[in-house]
Amino acid sequence: MSSYQPKYDELISDIKRITLLGSCASVLNWDRETYMPSGGAELRAEQVSLIAGLEHQWATSPRLGELLDELSQVDLGADDCVESVNVREIKRSYERATKLPQQLVEELSRVSALSQHAWSNAKEANDFAAFEPWLKQIIALKREQAACLQQGDGPLYDALLDLYEPGMTTAQIQSTFSVLRDELVPLVAKIAEASKKPDQSIVSRLFPVDAQAEFSKQMAGEIGFDFHRGRIDVSAHPFCSGFGPGDCRLTTRYDDHFFNMAFFGTLHEAGHGMYEQGLLPEHAGTPMGSAVSLGIHESQSRMWENLVGRSRSFWQHSFSEAQKWFPESLKDVSLDAFYGAINYVEPSMIRVEADEVTYNLHIMLRFELEQKMIAGELEAEQIPEAWNETFKEFFGIVPASDAEGCMQDVHWSAGYIGYFPTYALGNIYASQFFEAAEKQLGNLDEMFARGDFQPLKEWLNHNIHHRGQQYPASKLVEAVTGNKFSADALTTHLKTKFGSLYDLN
Amino acid sequence: MSSYQPKYDELISDIKRITLLGSCASVLNWDRETYMPSGGAELRAEQVSLIAGLEHQWATSPRLGELLDELSQVDLGADDCVESVNVREIKRSYERATKLPQQLVEELSRVSALSQHAWSNAKEANDFAAFEPWLKQIIALKREQAACLQQGDGPLYDALLDLYEPGMTTAQIQSTFSVLRDELVPLVAKIAEASKKPDQSIVSRLFPVDAQAEFSKQMAGEIGFDFHRGRIDVSAHPFCSGFGPGDCRLTTRYDDHFFNMAFFGTLHEAGHGMYEQGLLPEHAGTPMGSAVSLGIHESQSRMWENLVGRSRSFWQHSFSEAQKWFPESLKDVSLDAFYGAINYVEPSMIRVEADEVTYNLHIMLRFELEQKMIAGELEAEQIPEAWNETFKEFFGIVPASDAEGCMQDVHWSAGYIGYFPTYALGNIYASQFFEAAEKQLGNLDEMFARGDFQPLKEWLNHNIHHRGQQYPASKLVEAVTGNKFSADALTTHLKTKFGSLYDLN
Repeated sequence: MSSYQPKYDELISDIKRITLLGSCASVLNWDRETYMPSGGAELRAEQVSLIAGLEHQWATSPRLGELLDELSQVDLGADDCVESVNVREIKRSYERATKLPQQLVEELSRVSALSQHAWSNAKEANDFAAFEPWLKQIIALKREQAACLQQGDGPLYDALLDLYEPGMTTAQIQSTFSVLRDELVPLVAKIAEASKKPDQSIVSRLFPVDAQAEFSKQMAGEIGFDFHRGRIDVSAHPFCSGFGPGDCRLTTRYDDHFFNMAFFGTLHEAGHGMYEQGLLPEHAGTPMGSAVSLGIHESQSRMWENLVGRSRSFWQHSFSEAQKWFPESLKDVSLDAFYGAINYVEPSMIRVEADEVTYNLHIMLRFELEQKMIAGELEAEQIPEAWNETFKEFFGIVPASDAEGCMQDVHWSAGYIGYFPTYALGNIYASQFFEAAEKQLGNLDEMFARGDFQPLKEWLNHNIHHRGQQYPASKLVEAVTGNKFSADALTTHLKTKFGSLYDLN
Repeated sequence: MSSYQPKYDELISDIKRITLLGSCASVLNWDRETYMPSGGAELRAEQVSLIAGLEHQWATSPRLGELLDELSQVDLGADDCVESVNVREIKRSYERATKLPQQLVEELSRVSALSQHAWSNAKEANDFAAFEPWLKQIIALKREQAACLQQGDGPLYDALLDLYEPGMTTAQIQSTFSVLRDELVPLVAKIAEASKKPDQSIVSRLFPVDAQAEFSKQMAGEIGFDFHRGRIDVSAHPFCSGFGPGDCRLTTRYDDHFFNMAFFGTLHEAGHGMYEQGLLPEHAGTPMGSAVSLGIHESQSRMWENLVGRSRSFWQHSFSEAQKWFPESLKDVSLDAFYGAINYVEPSMIRVEADEVTYNLHIMLRFELEQKMIAGELEAEQIPEAWNETFKEFFGIVPASDAEGCMQDVHWSAGYIGYFPTYALGNIYASQFFEAAEKQLGNLDEMFARGDFQPLKEWLNHNIHHRGQQYPASKLVEAVTGNKFSADALTTHLKTKFGSLYDLN
């Protein structure tokens, strides 16, 4: 046993206890979004605020600081060995946490719990005025948080990005988004002018909710989500919450006249869930057993949703099954007509329902507005107008209501400012990973066409999930793909797939 | 402001924080019984153990002891004023908590969480051997707990009773149960020999689960359970958990060929829920805003389940509605035939499905076995045999399986030994309260017959719920009814109701 072992063990025991406490809050948050009656909102806010406060207290304890100081001076082995990774990442979290006053942490937790509730009601009533005071508080608190966390000379927004995508900067995202936008805008225009158009109305036929639930659960199981260690419920805004080994919760929502929402939503969340379920249980509660970043997390969900679930080969395997579940609506539909309908490209209001091509533009819009919010150039009351203007500029259309516009997403109400860019990063990473997987595994489409999703799942387990936080996102991409972070794989994928679907060449 | 005010405020703030932490564990426990996937059991055990440990740590903090010492020496006002009650009851809890080692508390919490899971699987498989090692651990831990808590010369079991029904002793229960048993045994015998028998088969017709859920929810709402501040879900063992003001969870379970189970189960849990919802929000988290005892809690559930829900007058109002929900099964049934069927008396295996008359015998059986378990006269492996022998003695029949016998209830697996007697106490209190309510409000049957449950609910709010822990159970009974704790009202009720139903006189 090395001389540092007792201190390292104490550190690990401490961090596991902190993670365990945090997982209690995850259950409370899950329940809030799924089953909590409206009368429970205030109590719930107090509960999560209590736990967040305690968690912060433990995460900033002087003893933790001492242990980290001592262990940082010891040779723990290679930079990417378990011990080095855990100490490095716990230290990073500790340094971040100690920059935040206890009161701010509790306040953010309390206000964002109440604010989510207010958002949900305001969205339903399409009443931005009812949400505005909450959003104002959230923005103020996030500015304060960013100011506490800021390092270097970059914009305040960098500090928020770093919460979700450690190491990523506003400047890097701007430059990548700019390349991507230059590819997407002409592609969207070409598609709009294409003479070949799929029949989108197929996915708006009647798809009874019970059958949707059964079918999407079945397919989530087929791609590899383990329902003994997880479940799926309904919430207003779909999400995945991994409480820990053995318990990962997915949510979705249903519209009996829209197939895509629940089905691809379920595959998406199952992709997140398979990442959580793929983390190594022996490292549970430590950085080596935790996801790298939200962008990497999103790469898993977008891969299963789009690169797998929206591929023609996936439906070669699954379409006859879909026809069994929805005989009335699909009996007269061909595989190719269905494949076209689920991939219909069109500027639309709602991010989560957007097609693969326009999706990233929704993110770019939010990224622009968020930077202004945090820089103090955009206040809560100006958001609906700014949203609609930017939306017009990006998509050529204006949302019919704030509920369909700036209030469509839960994120801002929950204090998740700086989070949205990770969705587009996820698309970018996903395409890079998928390209690498195909290089190593051979023709994935052939596997999907015979319903064999295991090789891809295991490849992701091995190359991404089992590694925990061994490498930061950008380094993980290089380690797995041999390439640097770049939107090239994504643009190639989109141009190939939609070029063929819309006969663009 | 009195000189003690800052200390009193600190005490209240501390106790609210402790209660809030405990309410987080309530959510975790609720989820475990309703939605948690099987893979989540271990993590959940660790979560609740962490919270129980923390809660115990806070509840035994030296500062709390100092505050209580100082406040105990101050004249806070009358014995039953808010301040006196809160200090008295917090002191009682503190003294109890400080007798328990931290490790025992965490271990009990962890083991009982895992043990409930093991019980649930073992019950399903009718495999007592799989449950036995868990039960053995639980009994050992409960003996240890009782030994820590024991006061005076009474049996160890007194210490466990006191956890659920403060102030109640084994001797008191024995003497009351003995009186009650002397009345019940001949009543059961007379009913068995009665020539008039209701047609029990009516309640075993087809009652589609969805309609059961809607109808029982509707009636729970009509008697006064507020679904904006609560909800109902499904669990293997029905329960009610009041997380705090605004959020009270009920559970039930359904059998599409047995009407009573879900319907009366729902009214039962709604009765508990209305107590929780009737506590004063301004005292939330303190003894003045908490239920008195489990026996008093059970008096509320049994009152709404039996004295209201199984009364003829309740069905004068509700039967036509029931016929609308279950036209196939009830169209040819008369009100009186239905009333007879839901009140059919017969020795049977399952406590929670037992009729009003035999129910208390189920409790007496458990009370006898539990005393022996804690006294060291009955070990886990001997329980199935002891159960079956005592069952034969009390009911003249023997359970067909351990699943229907000693494993039917969750309680022992959850560490709730000493809890069962409170169910019979609840029946006794309920009849005393009901008699007093009728004296003060006039003919309750007339109100029920026109669907007016509000007067009784408000009477309970005012006389019981709003009082929190102002008086201990026995004193509350005297304050509300003018009589001492006694089984007389219950035996009068049972003899009158079933004498008439079975033409016994």
